[in-house]
Amino acid sequence: MNLDDLVALAKSRGFFWPAAEIYGGASGIYDYGHVGALLKKRFETAWTSFFVESNDNYYLLDAANILPEKPLVASGHAALFNDILIACTKCKTHYRADVLLSDVGIRISEGANSAEIDDAVEKNGVKCPKCKGAMAKSKPFNMMFDLYLGPERTEKAYLRPETAQSVYLNFYREFNILRKKLPMGLALIGRAYRNEISPRQGLYRLRELIQAELQIFFDPENFEVDFERLAHRTLSVFFHGAGGVERLTVKEIVEKRGIPRFYAYHMALIDLFYTLVLRIPEHKFRFLEKGADSRAFYNKIHMDIEVDVESWGGFKEVGGIHYRTDYDLSSHSKGSNKDMSVSVGGKKFMPHVLELSFGVDRNVWALVDTMFGKIGERSVLQIPNYLAPFAAGIFPLQHDEILENKAREIYTTFRTQFRIEYDDSGSIGKRYARMDEIGTPFCITVDYDTVDSNSQNYNTVTVRHRDDKKQERAKVIDLGEFLSKNTAFDIGQFLKKSGLLV
Amino acid sequence: MNLDDLVALAKSRGFFWPAAEIYGGASGIYDYGHVGALLKKRFETAWTSFFVESNDNYYLLDAANILPEKPLVASGHAALFNDILIACTKCKTHYRADVLLSDVGIRISEGANSAEIDDAVEKNGVKCPKCKGAMAKSKPFNMMFDLYLGPERTEKAYLRPETAQSVYLNFYREFNILRKKLPMGLALIGRAYRNEISPRQGLYRLRELIQAELQIFFDPENFEVDFERLAHRTLSVFFHGAGGVERLTVKEIVEKRGIPRFYAYHMALIDLFYTLVLRIPEHKFRFLEKGADSRAFYNKIHMDIEVDVESWGGFKEVGGIHYRTDYDLSSHSKGSNKDMSVSVGGKKFMPHVLELSFGVDRNVWALVDTMFGKIGERSVLQIPNYLAPFAAGIFPLQHDEILENKAREIYTTFRTQFRIEYDDSGSIGKRYARMDEIGTPFCITVDYDTVDSNSQNYNTVTVRHRDDKKQERAKVIDLGEFLSKNTAFDIGQFLKKSGLLV
Repeated sequence: MNLDDLVALAKSRGFFWPAAEIYGGASGIYDYGHVGALLKKRFETAWTSFFVESNDNYYLLDAANILPEKPLVASGHAALFNDILIACTKCKTHYRADVLLSDVGIRISEGANSAEIDDAVEKNGVKCPKCKGAMAKSKPFNMMFDLYLGPERTEKAYLRPETAQSVYLNFYREFNILRKKLPMGLALIGRAYRNEISPRQGLYRLRELIQAELQIFFDPENFEVDFERLAHRTLSVFFHGAGGVERLTVKEIVEKRGIPRFYAYHMALIDLFYTLVLRIPEHKFRFLEKGADSRAFYNKIHMDIEVDVESWGGFKEVGGIHYRTDYDLSSHSKGSNKDMSVSVGGKKFMPHVLELSFGVDRNVWALVDTMFGKIGERSVLQIPNYLAPFAAGIFPLQHDEILENKAREIYTTFRTQFRIEYDDSGSIGKRYARMDEIGTPFCITVDYDTVDSNSQNYNTVTVRHRDDKKQERAKVIDLGEFLSKNTAFDIGQFLKKSGLLV
Repeated sequence: MNLDDLVALAKSRGFFWPAAEIYGGASGIYDYGHVGALLKKRFETAWTSFFVESNDNYYLLDAANILPEKPLVASGHAALFNDILIACTKCKTHYRADVLLSDVGIRISEGANSAEIDDAVEKNGVKCPKCKGAMAKSKPFNMMFDLYLGPERTEKAYLRPETAQSVYLNFYREFNILRKKLPMGLALIGRAYRNEISPRQGLYRLRELIQAELQIFFDPENFEVDFERLAHRTLSVFFHGAGGVERLTVKEIVEKRGIPRFYAYHMALIDLFYTLVLRIPEHKFRFLEKGADSRAFYNKIHMDIEVDVESWGGFKEVGGIHYRTDYDLSSHSKGSNKDMSVSVGGKKFMPHVLELSFGVDRNVWALVDTMFGKIGERSVLQIPNYLAPFAAGIFPLQHDEILENKAREIYTTFRTQFRIEYDDSGSIGKRYARMDEIGTPFCITVDYDTVDSNSQNYNTVTVRHRDDKKQERAKVIDLGEFLSKNTAFDIGQFLKKSGLLV
């Protein structure tokens, strides 16, 4: 699917579209419709189960989107959370400099400063792509949105640029409420805000985005992981400076590439999440290491999590693993005058942070892109059952009050337990097609046999399977167990498959 | 409990506290800790089940927090979403005028304008409560936070002041994607932002708040509800102009007070939610009708949902039912030039809106306030099991590797299915006490019998019940079913109890 097709599908089927669409839409700001909201929720539930609930010292927080100025000065965001902006002297169009250069085929590192950008523009004679005008000097542009609190609007604050900051600010209290043990994980799913210079379609570069992030606080001299269980899994990694993607075992990543064991172990966990839980095909998933020139200065090791997304034109970032060292806790200790070092096992030290970061919008988009396609003539979202927005559709075979009443009765019985849809509009074929496009794994149809007490098939329905169109006859009374068994997300099953739970 | 006690409990037990607390905190902006985030999530899940998932044409959306300027001009918020601000001429302290007046014992309607405020200040000789200085003239103060998008920061936008607007903006698309039938419900749980002049402690007047709102779009000439099923329920209502609270049946509210059937029916639904699902005692729950002088001009009927919250000093608003007529869809039709009237049953009309609005933070606070208390010497959060942050605690009886290993094994078995806590720190009494304070309904203890293959009680544990401290012996193998049965939220059960599901 190309970008336009996916945008059109997302609008017509209830996934997502630009906010305030009836007013022409807001650039880089999206709303989720009733189908998209469910899909997003399923992704978030699976993510939370896999990364948070399966660990005994990991917890989920929820925190405000507005942050006062001080912590974002201390974290360096007020001074350094910049993109380089460049404008055309003639038509005044503004560009994000690295995007402009990359669009005209010039490679420049993400971390390039103004001088380097201006140099590249001059050397290559870059002109405005719109009007061929000359480019002005570039300049740093802070991407945070500022706002002003209080009756005189004098208290400067920001919308948080990443959810991570909310977690660091709560580390001190949570560590002391909890068991004072490391590693401790604090996760948060929430919104972050960035004044992107040129947002694009496709939930990729958003001004308001949803992140699912897990911050793991640990003793840098002693971060024990269950390494051996995952040591022999093979991952795809594009190392910085390498000619291309390599397939290496987790053990090799440590031994040949010098990546710490705790880091490689978490790469393997993420690989399990993508390939086992989300079921992204192995060849469409990889890690991309960022070099010192393109990672944030506080990241000691940084790998992007990338998925090959056709509508984005190839492998793109959907998340990252960031070894942020003690940068964040040290900065906030200094900024707040609250020493956040901990005493564990008779040793006092500042915990280090490993961040597993995921863009929820990007992952939702990547799922739809990767899993939507043709089976013969049919358009089907072949998503795992436990990620599907609806567990089942319930249909009367045709327009007839007897069938409709029975179908409604079945719907009413199960609607409080499963997210299911009743649909009696249009032909049965059209109803199947609608459900196929939003990934509903089962369609349950009530026909005349269902309501005929003389029929062998009395009180049975047909259950149609999404992918192979297989139809089977099932007793109404067994539907609850069938849907439970076939649509519930069971994290235990994945932990077992992966060898993490024995 | 008074306000300070509850604030202290919330901090020490992991419920909530001011954002950026290590920097001194942000006024009116709160974070939820690991216990509070779970409690909030349980409230939201129960709310969604009860109000949204139990209806076949009601859906949940999720939408951006930033809205462009245009829709908020059209909705009237840019011009009219004001509080009246009044400042001291001497010490320059700013007050919300109606709060200042009410604090010094002068009654004034919430909708009073500047002239009326200035009049009341003069007539009563109101001085600054801090320095006794004279008050300046009052003036309207727009409570929305503005922000500026784009590389030149020229595109004005706002943080949405209420989640409702996100829903109205999506009505047109959703109505056309869905079954084009009314009543249609679109719900959203999300954040809203208001530059409150004087935020207070206690999750009451927040600058960043979480709302759970259901917008029901309907044909004003034909909004059928299952009235008879709830007609005989008795509600507590404080009507505008009445001397106090009256106990009236739903039928009497319609017949004696002229409230429309559809409105009274939804009052009864909300009463069911509070008394049956949240289990707020009947005498602590009521509706308060707002008169024309204190409701928004677009609300034809407005009742606040009030709970008697000791730490707030009495009955306070935790939500509202607002009959907004066609104000919102008409305003946005005009503002966007997109006609949002619908054709249903051969008739073209603008749908009307009934809004059921709930402050999530306020409800979470009210739950803790109402349900936290003493049982003998013990401090216990006596919350319904399905609202409790944790389903169970799992403890080894004492510090002994054999017991700890067994307790961990049980924990590992169930942690992927239930939100449970393993705890081996401190005496068993202290661990019980901690769990009591956060409302954990069951504590499961592993003792020497559990691990002694010669004991009758081999592979059994004690299950201690929170409220009566009753202890029973249970087989480990039965724990899953026990926890499922006793801690899962089953909306069907409530619908049956209320007579809504037969």
